[in-house]
Amino acid sequence: MKSIKKHLLDGLRLTPVDADEKFSINDKGARIDGAPKKDELLDHTDALLERLTLLQDAFHADGRRALLLILQGRDASGKDGTIRTVCGAFNPTGVHVSSFGVPTATELHHDYLWRIHQVVPALGMIGVFNRSQYEDVLVVRARKLVPKNVWEKRYDHINAFEQTLTDCGVVVRKCFLHVSRDEQRERLQERLADPKKNWKFRIGDLDDRALWDEYSQAYCDVLTKCSTKNAPWFVVPSDSKSVRNYLITRMLVETLEGMDLKYPAMDADVADKAKGFK
Amino acid sequence: MKSIKKHLLDGLRLTPVDADEKFSINDKGARIDGAPKKDELLDHTDALLERLTLLQDAFHADGRRALLLILQGRDASGKDGTIRTVCGAFNPTGVHVSSFGVPTATELHHDYLWRIHQVVPALGMIGVFNRSQYEDVLVVRARKLVPKNVWEKRYDHINAFEQTLTDCGVVVRKCFLHVSRDEQRERLQERLADPKKNWKFRIGDLDDRALWDEYSQAYCDVLTKCSTKNAPWFVVPSDSKSVRNYLITRMLVETLEGMDLKYPAMDADVADKAKGFK
Repeated sequence: MKSIKKHLLDGLRLTPVDADEKFSINDKGARIDGAPKKDELLDHTDALLERLTLLQDAFHADGRRALLLILQGRDASGKDGTIRTVCGAFNPTGVHVSSFGVPTATELHHDYLWRIHQVVPALGMIGVFNRSQYEDVLVVRARKLVPKNVWEKRYDHINAFEQTLTDCGVVVRKCFLHVSRDEQRERLQERLADPKKNWKFRIGDLDDRALWDEYSQAYCDVLTKCSTKNAPWFVVPSDSKSVRNYLITRMLVETLEGMDLKYPAMDADVADKAKGFK
Repeated sequence: MKSIKKHLLDGLRLTPVDADEKFSINDKGARIDGAPKKDELLDHTDALLERLTLLQDAFHADGRRALLLILQGRDASGKDGTIRTVCGAFNPTGVHVSSFGVPTATELHHDYLWRIHQVVPALGMIGVFNRSQYEDVLVVRARKLVPKNVWEKRYDHINAFEQTLTDCGVVVRKCFLHVSRDEQRERLQERLADPKKNWKFRIGDLDDRALWDEYSQAYCDVLTKCSTKNAPWFVVPSDSKSVRNYLITRMLVETLEGMDLKYPAMDADVADKAKGFK
């Protein structure tokens, strides 16, 4: 495989949130000062995406691990765009995207991890969550849908759940797509004016913007309480789409490269039989 | 949207199998004499794939239909390659590939359509089946896994099942990827020599080649008994990968174009609220 070293821009990479450090969410963190120009980023990202396609083939063949990519972020933070661009590099056979909206009546009659567990990726597969179990400590908290004594227990549940997954071969990576308040306004306004996009809006989408600070606080707790060694959170500065795509693609490439992927050997009986094959 | 008319090569298109006509499967049908050169086909296919991406966005938004693409064919006929290349044009959020292998113990304790029904695509979604319910009248018949009086009832079951889907908004398109005996040998030999591919072989894969004629007869019955107006079968000459990809992409584009897709209007209350949006 060709080397990707030259496509790894110095310093431009995601690092896991350190739960022990003081942490806050503010607009400044949604940008990277002095990031390379868009064209340069696109070139590097394209090379990394090509690499990602090859790595996924090996990952699928290897079959000893599953990969779960969780994408969280406010409206218009770029979850859909990330899936289209970054996850578009994967062979469709090996990836399954799950989008978690408002729970159905049936889902509400189960614990909140029930619907999540059902779509955890199998070994060899990549699962992508567009929103996730974290909605139950984000929207649920910001909109006061359940009392504090209910949601505050959930960080422990989620950590325990993710530990189980990790112990069973699921590699978990979690990205918070961080947009600033100004950037969100601009994107929402563009969407509201675009007939190919504005049909998606629900009335509540605009209410959430009014709860900006409540969400910031809720995200802050998620990121610090649930960033673990095996299931780390990454804060992705997402005001620039090209920076966002570069960073997430690089993180995925590095994650897969760290797995020591191997194509399994052919079964001995098949190899034998193949000798006489016509 | 830009016109694709100039990318529709005269005469190079799939037509549904007509159940009333005499039909047989032979090596000649795996090729198209006088097909355009590979480069020309690739150019046209790329343009159609671009169009397919746009159409899927409208299809997903429209949300009144689901699309189910069934791919069947002998080993090495190109099912995986079709998914990688053609279905790679879809936004991963809107497509779900299901691969049907040997049934599990649990699946065998249910009727054979049970595992199929669970992954029928939802409205707005595209489902791709790599193998399908038809395995139960193909491999099961060719290898004599159940007696004739069991499998011969299944054509009616399957037609009734697909009729239900059709009546409920699922548009069904079925492709038999038709390769010749020589082309299959060549591809299997290449795979057996490729460490990135040969690990996938099971000993039975080679046995199936010895049952070539049994499979031809089984496919012949599937194609004539189960090609219906609403869930047609297409025979895709697949000795050439570029011909195969062109033909399937074109069929999908034409299927989606025939749906009168519309982006829904924005909810009136959202439109009202958006006026005061900051």
